[in-house]
Amino acid sequence: MHKGLIVQKFGGSSVANVERIQKVARRIAGYRKKGYDLVVIVSALGDTTDELIELADKINPHPSEREMDMLLSTGEQISVALLAMAIHKLGLEAISFTGAQVGIITDSSHTRARIIKINADKIKEALSQGRIVIVAGFQGVTLNQDITTLGRGGSDLTAVALASELKADECEIYTDVEGIYTTDPRIEPRAKKIGSITFDEMLEMASLGTQVMQARSIEVAKKFNVPLHVRSSFSDNPGTMIVKEAERMEDVMVSGITLNKQEAKITICNVPDRPGVAAKIFKKLSNQGINVDMIVQNVSHTRSTDISFTVSKAQAHKAMKITRRVAANIKAGEALLDEDIARVSIVGVGMKSHPGVAAKMFEVLAHNKINIEMISTSDISISCIIQKKFAEKAVRTLHAKFGLGK
Amino acid sequence: MHKGLIVQKFGGSSVANVERIQKVARRIAGYRKKGYDLVVIVSALGDTTDELIELADKINPHPSEREMDMLLSTGEQISVALLAMAIHKLGLEAISFTGAQVGIITDSSHTRARIIKINADKIKEALSQGRIVIVAGFQGVTLNQDITTLGRGGSDLTAVALASELKADECEIYTDVEGIYTTDPRIEPRAKKIGSITFDEMLEMASLGTQVMQARSIEVAKKFNVPLHVRSSFSDNPGTMIVKEAERMEDVMVSGITLNKQEAKITICNVPDRPGVAAKIFKKLSNQGINVDMIVQNVSHTRSTDISFTVSKAQAHKAMKITRRVAANIKAGEALLDEDIARVSIVGVGMKSHPGVAAKMFEVLAHNKINIEMISTSDISISCIIQKKFAEKAVRTLHAKFGLGK
Repeated sequence: MHKGLIVQKFGGSSVANVERIQKVARRIAGYRKKGYDLVVIVSALGDTTDELIELADKINPHPSEREMDMLLSTGEQISVALLAMAIHKLGLEAISFTGAQVGIITDSSHTRARIIKINADKIKEALSQGRIVIVAGFQGVTLNQDITTLGRGGSDLTAVALASELKADECEIYTDVEGIYTTDPRIEPRAKKIGSITFDEMLEMASLGTQVMQARSIEVAKKFNVPLHVRSSFSDNPGTMIVKEAERMEDVMVSGITLNKQEAKITICNVPDRPGVAAKIFKKLSNQGINVDMIVQNVSHTRSTDISFTVSKAQAHKAMKITRRVAANIKAGEALLDEDIARVSIVGVGMKSHPGVAAKMFEVLAHNKINIEMISTSDISISCIIQKKFAEKAVRTLHAKFGLGK
Repeated sequence: MHKGLIVQKFGGSSVANVERIQKVARRIAGYRKKGYDLVVIVSALGDTTDELIELADKINPHPSEREMDMLLSTGEQISVALLAMAIHKLGLEAISFTGAQVGIITDSSHTRARIIKINADKIKEALSQGRIVIVAGFQGVTLNQDITTLGRGGSDLTAVALASELKADECEIYTDVEGIYTTDPRIEPRAKKIGSITFDEMLEMASLGTQVMQARSIEVAKKFNVPLHVRSSFSDNPGTMIVKEAERMEDVMVSGITLNKQEAKITICNVPDRPGVAAKIFKKLSNQGINVDMIVQNVSHTRSTDISFTVSKAQAHKAMKITRRVAANIKAGEALLDEDIARVSIVGVGMKSHPGVAAKMFEVLAHNKINIEMISTSDISISCIIQKKFAEKAVRTLHAKFGLGK
């Protein structure tokens, strides 16, 4: 009774200890008994990766990236072996593979390698022998047989790439939350689990601060149209489907609200309004490895203007140093740093066809006496920088006014 | 300045923590600076392997051997990455490899695989680029790309096999003792480190209870004539050279004395003296997985005789059960178990050309009122089973009388 192929990915918290590994094994066995073929991707147990990084740091604070990959890839190798053993204990056939063994071929950018191609013959063979296939996430191998890792969110990427290669019917991403929520339930208890969301919306949510999946895996899933199902490994409830727009029945205006308090705002006052000045500033920052996020420059009525931008808090002080030097150089005024800001964003493909969404957002904030310091918009999202102390209030009010709690 | 190629193997205790890994790295760097090419084999850090076995046992008390190998091979992979990082920290070039990456091809007898061949191209390439090569011990890969492990003492075997394949000038086995001693220094403080010993003697010592190296690696070293140097990773003192007989200058009669208190003696009384009876007993035991070591049967003057044999203490009670059944079956008398025995052995290729060594041993024991319960001899060793309470006395007396403390 062949019912189709499901790719399942379990994150580190889902396999953090013996009991959880056994629970994951029972879940897999349940699917197997229903007749599904299964390819399971696993991350390293709980904190294993962090512990290995710490150990390496004691030995060499600037370790070779090749050797880091050699070291870290052991974490997932331990997981797959243990999970296979746990499935055997339940009387089912399973076989584990490393990324190298299943032919996940990557480039040689160690610690952040990109998948070039997948040779899935070994997986197909094992599936045809009736086995559950367990694959180590997060890792691959170069054509020269060096072990590589795929960087943050790498196990999700392994799952999506294998699901695409194997033409799986579904790719389930198991995590420690029930799915994607209309907003962070810790801020707004009325936040609801979203039944389905488009790849584009999920990409916006990820880049705006929702931690559940990295943008990279979602991009790949979108490119190859791999339907994702983000759900909890601690319950049997359905989670959130991430799909192409066409596959979503409902037409909601706004899907979710995100909040990011990890940014700081830098403003350069009285910037001379000459062509090339902005370029000069941001090129210097980028050369020094500073990631600039939002940028706002008001249209200038005089011969000078203010430019504001946001960077991550971690890079704020380094960015300020560079900014001060550039400001002096271009004969601008002083540079100001504000770390007490928050970015609140609304996301939804529906807003493309619903004019007035932005206006409604600004109105809601204004009505609640929340001043907007910067605005940035994309096709399917609108972000406002506000004072940090208003962050939670803004999220809750917008959540209510856009009808997300219903 | 190319001075030759040295293969060095460091056991788990030599890399048990960060400080020891750094110490090993400094030792390697010292050799490198003298101009040697180096291939370094490392075991898993300290107790890593035991911890992984324990973890697996909690999940599945009867784990698949393939998955055990998948799991356990991570231990050495962690070691090689960390050691490479530690060497980099000292400003030297090093690169780590798994058994699979350096082409240590084995059969598919998981957990106790045998090396079929080694494709050392990757090692030779790295050496030619001036790199120190770090290889994970204890592991290999089948032609089907399944990861295998080589069983107990596997890292020594990796070292010996690579030294042979690469035609190394020397193979150094670093351990937590200074070398091979004339007897256990904990029993006889006057025990001396042996400067050089033959492969055959070392094989006898290993099989008679000296724990430093497994017989298997010594056999391979003998077969391919790989000179071994067993020495301590905690000092710079020379250790013990293990060589072909021809290479040893000195001609000593007795090289060492070993003691084994891990055996028990079983005696079957009044065994009918018919052909095939002994075969029946030992076949039954072997069928049940009991390893019988020494066997003594006295020439029979009546129509029945006593048969005594030794087994490991761990298997003694199982062996007794089987023996009692067989004894009844063949109409022999009762079966007796004696766990308070010890085996003391003298080892030396010299005894081949020195008649009277056995007689001297018996005389020394008799003179000290130590009764000999069983005797077994090989080409280069003589073993006596005595009462356990006399074990240390026997070792010390024989050590003195054969002039080993000098």
